[in-house]
Amino acid sequence: MRTTAQNAELALLLEVAGTPKPGNVDRHRDHDDLRFEHFLTGAVGAQEGLRMAAAGEPVGESFHRAIEGMADQRGGNTQFGAILLQLPLVVAAGADDRHLSPEGATAVVESTTVADAAGFYRAFEAVDVAVDDPPEDMAALDVRRGSDAVPALEERGLTLADIMARSADRDGIAREWVDGFERTFGAAESIESGEGPVADRAADAFLDLLAAEVDTFVVTQHDRATAERATERARAALDGDIDPEDLAAEFVAEEINPGTTADTVAAALFVALERGLEV
Amino acid sequence: MRTTAQNAELALLLEVAGTPKPGNVDRHRDHDDLRFEHFLTGAVGAQEGLRMAAAGEPVGESFHRAIEGMADQRGGNTQFGAILLQLPLVVAAGADDRHLSPEGATAVVESTTVADAAGFYRAFEAVDVAVDDPPEDMAALDVRRGSDAVPALEERGLTLADIMARSADRDGIAREWVDGFERTFGAAESIESGEGPVADRAADAFLDLLAAEVDTFVVTQHDRATAERATERARAALDGDIDPEDLAAEFVAEEINPGTTADTVAAALFVALERGLEV
Repeated sequence: MRTTAQNAELALLLEVAGTPKPGNVDRHRDHDDLRFEHFLTGAVGAQEGLRMAAAGEPVGESFHRAIEGMADQRGGNTQFGAILLQLPLVVAAGADDRHLSPEGATAVVESTTVADAAGFYRAFEAVDVAVDDPPEDMAALDVRRGSDAVPALEERGLTLADIMARSADRDGIAREWVDGFERTFGAAESIESGEGPVADRAADAFLDLLAAEVDTFVVTQHDRATAERATERARAALDGDIDPEDLAAEFVAEEINPGTTADTVAAALFVALERGLEV
Repeated sequence: MRTTAQNAELALLLEVAGTPKPGNVDRHRDHDDLRFEHFLTGAVGAQEGLRMAAAGEPVGESFHRAIEGMADQRGGNTQFGAILLQLPLVVAAGADDRHLSPEGATAVVESTTVADAAGFYRAFEAVDVAVDDPPEDMAALDVRRGSDAVPALEERGLTLADIMARSADRDGIAREWVDGFERTFGAAESIESGEGPVADRAADAFLDLLAAEVDTFVVTQHDRATAERATERARAALDGDIDPEDLAAEFVAEEINPGTTADTVAAALFVALERGLEV
């Protein structure tokens, strides 16, 4: 009964409701200036852009619209990465000639254009997103330049898929885009096969994902050593050596926010909901 | 930037996020079979009906659609009362020739038709709502009869406003409909003039409302004496004689759920958001 866009929005809401998700805002935890209700508001605000994507409007424009809507709250960046990761999945699920599968989503990625890349860059003007400095040969394409970078995109003829490919070695979202959304679909399966409340399954999926792979947002925010340590700690939590609630307190104290892992959970929840997961 | 329908949905989300709201599901509390995520899902599901109301489609049909969408989760009745209370406000806010004011909302109430009453009755088929037995002369109009009651409505020429007027002495939502939404607008003002996170202000408004007036859902669920005691306890919490968190534990133990008070907070949040409250 829910539309594809509604499932995408609901996935954003269920993601933030899952607890404990060590280091992130969740049902039981706020950061100082980034609170739970900012995520609720961001999810509602993203609605129109998600609807556009499900209706087959251009990926870049849909993303730009979703991020503008998401940013209409005072917490700042709540779900930029989650929406970016969801978007090809939403397009695939909404399209008549595609399927919500690794192949279907990859076909969406491969069909992106230079205009989509421009929309992606424009979205950075709506909200502050933490990113690393780009490699020297990509300075003209620094996402923080927003629409100022569009002429360089056009000159080089870079599609959104090209942009993602260039970031895939250091950004977990971009890697999913180019790798067939492998981790997303894997997490969706674990959520679908799980038991108990959906938000609890989302929290479990978060810990599994973090234990399996370094969170690139933590690398950006701190450094690789910190991110590797965070992943080791998540593994310890999975092994029962530390209570996830205590790990949450530990990450908060160290200001470790595995945001890319949370984004992956949001995308996985979307896949699971589209496939019929009941809440 | 958010639409009227989005503000209505966001109000439902912010309401359930506010904590502590003694006796109700909130960010920190679930009931056994009615969990936080059911409210998130209910709010997203209500979207299309809320959009219809904001676009000026008939109140009864919009309500029916909203409740069908809300019910697409496994928790049961999450926001029936809240949406019912919001609806005339949403119509007024969305209409070119009305205002979001007691007068504007009352004009919407007064314009309701027999067909709107029929839509309201049909909505009861989508979800189990706890209601009292009707007075004897209204047995044919028992809401639990759903669409079976529609011929009786039509025969007697009863509009939705008429139905509400007949329940106003024992139902807090109906009373708001016929009394110009006095408590809703009052609570909206207190939320607007409050300080701190919006969800915290919502929790404060909840306690103020409950301390001021008996919750009719608690009367239905238990009896008047229990509801009066709940209101006394809320007053004690306001006076600082009991910690609201302890009151929440007390109400949970006694299975006291002041649902009508929560519904009023949701409607008040909608009014405040429409008037520019920032989250």
